[in-house]
Amino acid sequence: MDDRVREHAEVLVDWSARVEEGDDVIVSVSEGCHDLAVAVSEALGERGANVVTLYSSAEANRAYLRAHDDEFGLGEHELALVESADVGIRIGGGRNTSAMVDVDAATRAASSKASEAVREAWMDLDYVSTLHPTRSLAQQAEMSYEAYQEFVYDAILRDWQALADEMAQLKEILDAGSEVRLVIGDHTDVSMSIEGRTAVNSAASVAYNSSNLPSGEVFTAPYDTEGEVCFDVPMTFRGKTVRDVRLAFEDGEVVEYSAGHNEDVLGEILDTDDGARRLGELGIGMNPGIDRFTDNILFDEKMRDTVHLAVGRAYDANLPEGEDGNHSAVHVDMIADVSEDSRLEVDGEVVQRDGVFRWEDKFTA
Amino acid sequence: MDDRVREHAEVLVDWSARVEEGDDVIVSVSEGCHDLAVAVSEALGERGANVVTLYSSAEANRAYLRAHDDEFGLGEHELALVESADVGIRIGGGRNTSAMVDVDAATRAASSKASEAVREAWMDLDYVSTLHPTRSLAQQAEMSYEAYQEFVYDAILRDWQALADEMAQLKEILDAGSEVRLVIGDHTDVSMSIEGRTAVNSAASVAYNSSNLPSGEVFTAPYDTEGEVCFDVPMTFRGKTVRDVRLAFEDGEVVEYSAGHNEDVLGEILDTDDGARRLGELGIGMNPGIDRFTDNILFDEKMRDTVHLAVGRAYDANLPEGEDGNHSAVHVDMIADVSEDSRLEVDGEVVQRDGVFRWEDKFTA
Repeated sequence: MDDRVREHAEVLVDWSARVEEGDDVIVSVSEGCHDLAVAVSEALGERGANVVTLYSSAEANRAYLRAHDDEFGLGEHELALVESADVGIRIGGGRNTSAMVDVDAATRAASSKASEAVREAWMDLDYVSTLHPTRSLAQQAEMSYEAYQEFVYDAILRDWQALADEMAQLKEILDAGSEVRLVIGDHTDVSMSIEGRTAVNSAASVAYNSSNLPSGEVFTAPYDTEGEVCFDVPMTFRGKTVRDVRLAFEDGEVVEYSAGHNEDVLGEILDTDDGARRLGELGIGMNPGIDRFTDNILFDEKMRDTVHLAVGRAYDANLPEGEDGNHSAVHVDMIADVSEDSRLEVDGEVVQRDGVFRWEDKFTA
Repeated sequence: MDDRVREHAEVLVDWSARVEEGDDVIVSVSEGCHDLAVAVSEALGERGANVVTLYSSAEANRAYLRAHDDEFGLGEHELALVESADVGIRIGGGRNTSAMVDVDAATRAASSKASEAVREAWMDLDYVSTLHPTRSLAQQAEMSYEAYQEFVYDAILRDWQALADEMAQLKEILDAGSEVRLVIGDHTDVSMSIEGRTAVNSAASVAYNSSNLPSGEVFTAPYDTEGEVCFDVPMTFRGKTVRDVRLAFEDGEVVEYSAGHNEDVLGEILDTDDGARRLGELGIGMNPGIDRFTDNILFDEKMRDTVHLAVGRAYDANLPEGEDGNHSAVHVDMIADVSEDSRLEVDGEVVQRDGVFRWEDKFTA
């Protein structure tokens, strides 16, 4: 086995999921991820955890959904499993990113709605989602398999404590701040309130309220957005590539939008519900191992030199105890390159200029 | 997908497991069995069942067990899953029948003991175990992949109702009988009591108390065994081939034994505990699709023209309500060819001669 697979498993189990002896762990394994499943099993055995391993096959799921009459029930056994567990680890990957495109959207929605309690129970676990570099994901990234593996392990096998410490500086600034302004070239100038909101230092560990490996972003839940923003990093949503999204905000809501490609998909997203026209997230990518777009949101949104905004649902971790944030059935991230001719200000002070942060040597205010 | 895979899934879900709408089903999938997992998912979707799919990887299990310190706990989440389910389907197969040979026997035993409650919960489900024909199993059978697939589907894709009806005749004879005598050539003449015991018409369905697909045997729990028996069909136990086993019984216990190959393994089995020297099962193979030895007990013991005896544990289904049968940590089947120069008598009446049953045209009493 590739040493990097074993190192990945160790980061996942120790840094990310913080597994301890006697923990009841669920590991969900996608197609094509056998090697990482073996390495994770080994790591969990060493730590004395109890393991249930699920087979998360897109092809089996597709066959099930297409055969079903759409009157989905809740699997009480599945709920019992998740509610009785301590830790949940999802290993994504797969052998075909298009494996489920011919499942009817209404069927997916009905199935998803029926299993909402299971999904919520997963979120109550010490939960981490990661990816095994499969050939299918390499293809999606338009990369060779070898190069994609290097890319993935550069993003995952990091000194997470050092990155967490660096990101803590940005969290501190955002937590103390009231207003964020993002300016890029002459196409983006957008402001939003973050007063009363708490930023998450997403350092790829349940200890940091972070459920992704890799992670490497600081995010918060903005509101009262005003201005215009252009997202120049492509995104794939509902199987379609959307490019050059432009959004104009007034009183916190999207009042105009356009896209250079598949604008109708963007329109569908924004028309989902009222919350889909408001922001749910402002995130600043800070993972230095992620230096290119790979058409996978788990990686793209953590890219160094990018800022992303998500329309739709806000995360509870950003909100004061008991306060509701933006509600929506969707949460769609859109990413802007800030490596050149940009500035991110908090209460009028520049925090990041042309991708360089205030605390970095090369920063000029 | 091979049509036979889809037919296998339908037999498994409908005839064997009797899945109904709303059932909470666990499907456990071994390595190399993806196609059958997809077909079973489709069948379960059609029937409106709720599904949790487990990944039963010998390699992951090996890694886990070898890394563990042998102080195994019970996974409460696993127990909750199984206790909350209605139906359990195990798809065996795998990519290497030797995948776990370098796991210490004591480790396996400790792990097995810790998960006893989970195993019992599985037995309380409508439970069926089947096999997907993998290349690894073909190799174990010393067959080409194509020929092995044909063999497996001949054994599985049968008119099960017709076979159940035929086997019912033997069950009736055994249920009414008191003593069974098996004579083969000049090497086997063994008698045993079956008074008060109930035979199982093992017709590959939970409706017949049968948990195997394929099945095709009638079995009961004999006692007070006397005489000598030679088993000429090879068996593999603990990874070693044992050939030409001879057992001599007095007062229900093995008093002498020998084997033509790996006799020490036979000795280990018989020395496991007191019950390991007494019989737990007498089974008569009746599946006409199984016409050759393939070194896999799920198939071998159902071979037409064979009779098997198992030392060790008896099954509850054969015993009067509340009565205990033979206890043992082991249950090891040994198989004899009865196609030539043999007779099986019940209370002195010949039921099967040279592999031909009393109700068949070619039978001569």
